[in-house]
Amino acid sequence: MVPERSGGRTKRPTISEVARRAGVSTGTVSRYLNGGHWVSPESSKAISRAVRETGYVANSTARQLRTGRSGTVAFVVDESPARFFEDPNFEALVIEAGQALAARDQSMVLLLAGDEDSAKRAETFLLTSGVDGAVTASAQPEHHLFERIQAAGIPLVNVGSPAGLEERIAFVAADDREGARLMARHLVDQGARKIAVIAGPAHSPGGILRPDAFTGAVDKAAGEGAPARVVVVRHGDYTVASGKELASRMLAEHPGIDAFFAANDRMARGVIEAVRASGRSVPGDVLVGGFDDSAGADTEDPPLTTVRQDFRRIAKELVDALGKQIDGGVRTNVVVPVELMVRESTTPPGGADER
Amino acid sequence: MVPERSGGRTKRPTISEVARRAGVSTGTVSRYLNGGHWVSPESSKAISRAVRETGYVANSTARQLRTGRSGTVAFVVDESPARFFEDPNFEALVIEAGQALAARDQSMVLLLAGDEDSAKRAETFLLTSGVDGAVTASAQPEHHLFERIQAAGIPLVNVGSPAGLEERIAFVAADDREGARLMARHLVDQGARKIAVIAGPAHSPGGILRPDAFTGAVDKAAGEGAPARVVVVRHGDYTVASGKELASRMLAEHPGIDAFFAANDRMARGVIEAVRASGRSVPGDVLVGGFDDSAGADTEDPPLTTVRQDFRRIAKELVDALGKQIDGGVRTNVVVPVELMVRESTTPPGGADER
Repeated sequence: MVPERSGGRTKRPTISEVARRAGVSTGTVSRYLNGGHWVSPESSKAISRAVRETGYVANSTARQLRTGRSGTVAFVVDESPARFFEDPNFEALVIEAGQALAARDQSMVLLLAGDEDSAKRAETFLLTSGVDGAVTASAQPEHHLFERIQAAGIPLVNVGSPAGLEERIAFVAADDREGARLMARHLVDQGARKIAVIAGPAHSPGGILRPDAFTGAVDKAAGEGAPARVVVVRHGDYTVASGKELASRMLAEHPGIDAFFAANDRMARGVIEAVRASGRSVPGDVLVGGFDDSAGADTEDPPLTTVRQDFRRIAKELVDALGKQIDGGVRTNVVVPVELMVRESTTPPGGADER
Repeated sequence: MVPERSGGRTKRPTISEVARRAGVSTGTVSRYLNGGHWVSPESSKAISRAVRETGYVANSTARQLRTGRSGTVAFVVDESPARFFEDPNFEALVIEAGQALAARDQSMVLLLAGDEDSAKRAETFLLTSGVDGAVTASAQPEHHLFERIQAAGIPLVNVGSPAGLEERIAFVAADDREGARLMARHLVDQGARKIAVIAGPAHSPGGILRPDAFTGAVDKAAGEGAPARVVVVRHGDYTVASGKELASRMLAEHPGIDAFFAANDRMARGVIEAVRASGRSVPGDVLVGGFDDSAGADTEDPPLTTVRQDFRRIAKELVDALGKQIDGGVRTNVVVPVELMVRESTTPPGGADER
């Protein structure tokens, strides 16, 4: 991997040298380095060997110097591996983003940050690996992920609204506010009067936009005569466990709660567990709505009323927005429409009037 | 990202130039590039800016030229993202390997290959990114992952025995044969007489070593007088669905089957579904044993008798073996002990005699 040196200077092998040694044209070497299309297995093998023997790429990252592109995008998720695997949204995003990139013959590498040290290591990787850009998710302010990536001079698009940094960080987000308003109107229409809200962490869209828009819409309905109000708001951490724990406490403190809005589906599942543990039923005694339409929302018991994020569309827009930024420095913010999915968790068999 | 050029030659910025511009010592720049320990936030910011302005790293990957190390290891999983997320073993390996690397201040990037095109893109990434080495899992022969990585001159350690390539590819594996023998003896002791085996894909250890050693051990027991034999062996693809489908067919063709050995726990879960769908019970009518002790093996219904792979130990050995290969070119093969975990799926309440 260490290149030849002469007189203290590094001598850079050229693409022609690689081609000569491999016995193929420079065009074939170029195609090989750009993904290997239309290169025979024999040529690929010969080029691989020539690249290794000359130290061509490790030495000069010559492909990047020529094209300015490595063809690789980093997906940096600022979560511990355990949290990453727990949340089905990441699975959906990784699958869809991978496919959207593959359609452009680009590859994705996945980095899990999750703490300050791993965020630092991610920054070093981004500095040294020559990736073309980064998609970020779950950035936690104290890890300084945005700053690190921008300091590294790497194009960056965030999944979701970057709380308070919307003017500086490109992002692709579901329409959090509209989704929360749709859920508020639905719960009020279903007869909810005393509503509890479990928001996400304070730095996340689910910790700000969703609870704010939800509460605003309930207040608006109340102003128009609906007998509904938000009685309590707490912040969870998007896990089932946090939804369960918060809902238990809220039900103990406010026994009259007849509806919950949780800022993601995992917390909504925890709420349902807590409601049942308290001897109440969903949706008979308490309505529960979530956000995301994550995997399992429609199949677990009961099917969950939620706000659908279109992860395929979000992933495609992410890849498009990142491509534009890589190509021309254009910063794009994209808001993707959402859809209210009404299911059993907010629709008692006898209808809202029977509650 | 594109460096300054003069007279057609690339002028390489030096570490001293970065240090001068950032107003810090070269030692501080070096510490920054090696992960940022003992560098103040202010200095980090100044160095980031200086690196960007000089094009220091993107230009010369100077850190690698100095140290010969990027501090990054690629974990290349030759599975589609959907399969990657379905199998809890990958989660365990990624978490454990990430921790073992972090303990050495190394970072991990994850690449999902899964088809020929993405394997090619992974090879290009490995060629251009300067990662120090690769851990591979689930390599499928038709994607030529080992050949691609070795052609790129990258140190490589595989998770599991690389079928037929044990002499050429370094690996860390659970003791597949011993695990299969332990399971065979246990099922025979529990009174199994007509045993069906669902092996893994033909290229995998579970497709070769586990079924062969299992069948050998049952034959040996039969030679010593046990009234047991393997009546049928089929290959699944490690998914729950394949276990279920194969078991249904096997039960239809061989109604007398009283025990199954599946080469992983996911397929064993599918077998249990098929047994129940046929009107039989586990373990009352049919014993079922798996392999892996994956997440959920002890909590799903019924708790599953299985062969425990110690993923933490395997991950640690992977990182050690890869480190040795990176440092000194040493190729190490490590076989990690396994343990039989006896649970309800092979132990009828009344004991083996009651069946």
